[in-house]
Amino acid sequence: MSEPQAGPIGVAVVGAGTVGARVVQQIAEHAEDLRSRIGLPVQVTGVAVRDAGRDRPELGDVPVTTDAVVLAADPSASIVVELMGGVEQAHAVVTAALRRGASVVTANKALLAAHGVELHRLARENHADLYYEGAVAGAIPLLRPLRESFVGDHITKVLGIVNGTTNYILTQMTDEGSDYAAALKQAQDLGYAEADPTADVSGQDSAAKAVILARLAFHTDIDASQVSVEGIESVSVADIEAARAMGFVIKLLAVAELVDGEGVVVRVHPALVPQNHPLSSVRGPFNAVFVSASAAGDVMFYGRGAGGAPTASAVVGDIVTAARNLAAGSRGFAVEPYAALATLPLGRARTRYYVNLHVADEPGVLATVATAFAAHGVSISVVRQDGAGDEASLVVRTHEATDAALSATVASLRELPAVRNVVGVMRVEGQA
Amino acid sequence: MSEPQAGPIGVAVVGAGTVGARVVQQIAEHAEDLRSRIGLPVQVTGVAVRDAGRDRPELGDVPVTTDAVVLAADPSASIVVELMGGVEQAHAVVTAALRRGASVVTANKALLAAHGVELHRLARENHADLYYEGAVAGAIPLLRPLRESFVGDHITKVLGIVNGTTNYILTQMTDEGSDYAAALKQAQDLGYAEADPTADVSGQDSAAKAVILARLAFHTDIDASQVSVEGIESVSVADIEAARAMGFVIKLLAVAELVDGEGVVVRVHPALVPQNHPLSSVRGPFNAVFVSASAAGDVMFYGRGAGGAPTASAVVGDIVTAARNLAAGSRGFAVEPYAALATLPLGRARTRYYVNLHVADEPGVLATVATAFAAHGVSISVVRQDGAGDEASLVVRTHEATDAALSATVASLRELPAVRNVVGVMRVEGQA
Repeated sequence: MSEPQAGPIGVAVVGAGTVGARVVQQIAEHAEDLRSRIGLPVQVTGVAVRDAGRDRPELGDVPVTTDAVVLAADPSASIVVELMGGVEQAHAVVTAALRRGASVVTANKALLAAHGVELHRLARENHADLYYEGAVAGAIPLLRPLRESFVGDHITKVLGIVNGTTNYILTQMTDEGSDYAAALKQAQDLGYAEADPTADVSGQDSAAKAVILARLAFHTDIDASQVSVEGIESVSVADIEAARAMGFVIKLLAVAELVDGEGVVVRVHPALVPQNHPLSSVRGPFNAVFVSASAAGDVMFYGRGAGGAPTASAVVGDIVTAARNLAAGSRGFAVEPYAALATLPLGRARTRYYVNLHVADEPGVLATVATAFAAHGVSISVVRQDGAGDEASLVVRTHEATDAALSATVASLRELPAVRNVVGVMRVEGQA
Repeated sequence: MSEPQAGPIGVAVVGAGTVGARVVQQIAEHAEDLRSRIGLPVQVTGVAVRDAGRDRPELGDVPVTTDAVVLAADPSASIVVELMGGVEQAHAVVTAALRRGASVVTANKALLAAHGVELHRLARENHADLYYEGAVAGAIPLLRPLRESFVGDHITKVLGIVNGTTNYILTQMTDEGSDYAAALKQAQDLGYAEADPTADVSGQDSAAKAVILARLAFHTDIDASQVSVEGIESVSVADIEAARAMGFVIKLLAVAELVDGEGVVVRVHPALVPQNHPLSSVRGPFNAVFVSASAAGDVMFYGRGAGGAPTASAVVGDIVTAARNLAAGSRGFAVEPYAALATLPLGRARTRYYVNLHVADEPGVLATVATAFAAHGVSISVVRQDGAGDEASLVVRTHEATDAALSATVASLRELPAVRNVVGVMRVEGQA
């Protein structure tokens, strides 16, 4: 145990962008509330900025510096808040803070995905708190319940929409029939997408969040090289229309699931979701995450996934938690990878598929196609065949099978002479 | 600070009904997981039952007693789990445990609504934890986020469906056109409603949960005499049809909201919810709660609201949290009513109304009715008039006004000679 801290709780804020500036403002505005909730006042000891020349009236009279690492190492702050973004410099700041036993609050998902295992180890070794509620799903309280509420249960799957940019783009394509490029442009105009949208549309941002969620849900380190990532760049309006005709919408999902009790599959890809599933009505920049646990069943968390104010709310919440711990001389519960599960490749996941084929419209084609599925042990759930001249459209939905069996089936379909073209293949998630 | 506990964590379970028996089983089944998460093993020291004669193979070799208070007072248990239900005896058990500094986990909403203020005070005075995640919304992690995640933000409203029985009945009435009596019977047959359904259908169960939510969200004691409660007994299929025609569904809502920054209104009543609002798709026995906060915006929590397994999951989660605190020699953060806000009467709430009138179909009626609204400062949002012989149907929806102004308006409408009958009056919640 540590000694309870007696004086004001010093907080150093590294990064004064939208979120950083709001955090400083919220601490000032809610000073009395925070003192009631913590039992001690909070004092911002300094803010690290990139450009010291700029005038920053929003920071009030808080001292400003450009040396982030020196600020993080300064013992006058018992909590260091990292909001600068990026990985390398942020890593230097956070490790400098943890090494001297300071508690750290961050919203940097890229840092956590890349170095979370090391940072949690450092936090444990130095008896420091490490909180990052703002890194995933904005102000939605999701990481704390994963760390603390399901501790008496057994989580089997985490599945959700964790990237507002891609969800906005897919919603526009679905509702307005915009093509991908037009929807992306609109997202950029509204500030929902960056000038360089790669991290979002490629699925990398969702993947970083999926790694963070998987680590907490399954008490295990995640091997990033086994995480499967597919973005939304190749989703077409035609895919969305075909999905709609079958009663589905297309969503970019982040999934982390326990497979056969022996390992975890982490995957990000577009998927078909039934129109009557709660995730299908998560629109625009909103986020929603389902957590499935043995006893609790499915629990969903829903809200704004990003934005300065919600993220700042999550960050200030973490600061209050860390400060309460310091005032009590205690620390929060460490994240321990005690389950030590393997990260399994995508092929081990059990999913359902939707396969859209153009086939020759001649006798025996359906039998040939059905045989290809059966040969890989994949059971067919629904078939819809529509003739059109000498070519027919054949849509197949499968029951659950391993992703490896399903992708082997699709590979062998491509080899069949009767199959003119594999028009679309997509995974299906969520029970109708 | 306390000394960290070194040996196994003793847990006494009072009540061996569905939830109690499952809690004992889950502790046994997840013994290794719990030890990893707590750092110490958990040992059930005893179970208090009503009828000692019954054979209870589900409890294994755990000692059984009929004296609940003696079990709760026994120092071999550092955590007492109260799952007996009822108020008086449960109060004796919980106070006996807290007075000796034992941590308490309960799922007893009636106890907490009636005595929560006193029990939290006892917990603070004796440096004991008091957790009750299972008391509201089953396994949905809701109370912990309210206690800990929004601590850097400012909650303005909590609004939700917190009673699965009434939501099941209203869903059946909406989807199947069943009348109230038939839907209630069906809920009873499926085990969603008790033989005596009064506590659920009268809104009292929802009101107890609303009081618990309000206390945590607004850091304040709630004066139960000011809580307004209306159940679903008088909701008719005709009301539901009329709502549907306007794009709404009828839900029994529990609402706790900050009014004019000076007090809290707590109210339970059926309300119209727009069909495109996320709460409208919460069906059957599910629960969902919206939390609105200044910076975080609206966050929704959704899942199964009741049932043995989900409630047991929440209870075991609380046991693990209390046990981790004991193992660390710390305690969780106390619930303090530091904001000391007043509980305001229903009249102070700001809501919208839907009013369905039968009026004489003659010139000037609309003007007369509109004048009655204006006289009370209530602004009309939508009017729909349909003539039918010498009588017309007039449906009015209002903008937001105080509930007092709205109910005074309705009272004066009843006095108007042109108004033959006030067919329906309902509050409207949730922005479309």
